[in-house]
Amino acid sequence: MPLNPDAVGTVSEPSTASWTSKDTLLYAVSLGAGTNELQYTTENTNGVTQQVLPTFPVVIPGGAGAMRSIGTFNPAMLVHGSQSVTLHRTLPVEGTATIVGKIVAMYDKGKAGVVVSEAHAVGEDGAPLYTTGSSAFIRGEGGWGGERGPSGPQNVPPERAPDHTVTYVTSPDQALIYRLNGDRNPLHSDPSFAAMGGFDRPILHGLCTYGFTGRALLHSLCGGESSRFKHIEGRFASPVIPGESLTINAWITGPGEAVFTTSVGDRVVIDQGLVKYSE
Amino acid sequence: MPLNPDAVGTVSEPSTASWTSKDTLLYAVSLGAGTNELQYTTENTNGVTQQVLPTFPVVIPGGAGAMRSIGTFNPAMLVHGSQSVTLHRTLPVEGTATIVGKIVAMYDKGKAGVVVSEAHAVGEDGAPLYTTGSSAFIRGEGGWGGERGPSGPQNVPPERAPDHTVTYVTSPDQALIYRLNGDRNPLHSDPSFAAMGGFDRPILHGLCTYGFTGRALLHSLCGGESSRFKHIEGRFASPVIPGESLTINAWITGPGEAVFTTSVGDRVVIDQGLVKYSE
Repeated sequence: MPLNPDAVGTVSEPSTASWTSKDTLLYAVSLGAGTNELQYTTENTNGVTQQVLPTFPVVIPGGAGAMRSIGTFNPAMLVHGSQSVTLHRTLPVEGTATIVGKIVAMYDKGKAGVVVSEAHAVGEDGAPLYTTGSSAFIRGEGGWGGERGPSGPQNVPPERAPDHTVTYVTSPDQALIYRLNGDRNPLHSDPSFAAMGGFDRPILHGLCTYGFTGRALLHSLCGGESSRFKHIEGRFASPVIPGESLTINAWITGPGEAVFTTSVGDRVVIDQGLVKYSE
Repeated sequence: MPLNPDAVGTVSEPSTASWTSKDTLLYAVSLGAGTNELQYTTENTNGVTQQVLPTFPVVIPGGAGAMRSIGTFNPAMLVHGSQSVTLHRTLPVEGTATIVGKIVAMYDKGKAGVVVSEAHAVGEDGAPLYTTGSSAFIRGEGGWGGERGPSGPQNVPPERAPDHTVTYVTSPDQALIYRLNGDRNPLHSDPSFAAMGGFDRPILHGLCTYGFTGRALLHSLCGGESSRFKHIEGRFASPVIPGESLTINAWITGPGEAVFTTSVGDRVVIDQGLVKYSE
């Protein structure tokens, strides 16, 4: 069942999504933020103003309508390839956004198809709030004779020690908390479902690893101030098992710019990472 | 500012409360339930039917209206004394209840007043679902010349080793997760607020300790089946700091009945505990 490459350029109908302080607080605790980060985990601490972790847009629903234009395929064959978040201004701790999805590219890798999509969100005043970008790798769905698209690694770290290293321990129950943000795919919780996918045990949501990574970069590069965090992108290289420790290495490569990787021991789990921030 | 003992017998207007599977799942993970308890922490695991932890009614709002009849007092002087939950049938993983609150007794302890209240919940079919009972100890509000009420310990454990012992470790971040069930009192999260209350650091919600206790009794006495859990009551004896380990001891005292205590080391934190279950 081939994909439909004519879907490129499709724009979804706008949808709206709202979130409350409970949603943003849950997101923070689901990424391991705790008593040292009360600006992310509480809304009523004396002298502290609640902020939102910068990767929160990945759990705001919206824009998925455009994906319906790409044709039919087996969802079990879809792998999340990469993810970006661009913040046009500071996210409110509760709010409403109107979101439009767009298919921006489709690439033919021969044995797989790659679909690159974006979601553009505006706030209640109509001004841009955030943009997310995502690539989906769909096994078995290439071969329509289209362009292969860009290849080769991007955002490669320089050959020197990182400028910042942060290690966070995930909990064996991390996915059970993270899934309450909305993605209840049993791949992350049901051992029998994970086994059907070829995994010894349920794997952590890639976007959970991504959120831990954003939290580490926020603290190491932005002094913990979400208003300074502007952009993050990275590629999912390997799954993580809940309970593993994530080490985030960042190399500053220019003013307000750093490349990063996230690893479990020697295994890189997010690569080609780039983060932009105000100094 | 004395309390109004004529409030005894006051019944609130009925209120309705609804909950979703997200609420019941969040409640479970906020009490440390994890990958070994997928019947409480997931709704879509193959071969597993979601259940609700038996103490969930304590986070369902409703019935508080009756408390407005007891007079005015400084809420900072109120201490949660004891709590009971009686389940008239198995709680649905999502549902709606109609709840009526009632002031059932007020006692004059001289230097404090005690207010005993109940909340009676019926399901969508109008049949009883659960009843909760709570006593509030209000320092500085006694002295109206009323009855002192019952005294002396109840549900005292027998002088022998317990039949069941379960120890659960709480997380230093436990209160930050538990508060998302609804009780966002900064006593449990804000160090400066806790200090004003005379605590070195924020204390765990008493009802969080209570929920861990119910979870331990569910597994040790009811084989993990919530449908077998009928009633729990206990008295809050001492606060718990997030990160401390809770040891729940249970002594079977009759058919389908046990007394219990919850301790942190040698310090009893819930005493006078009684649990009823179907064998």
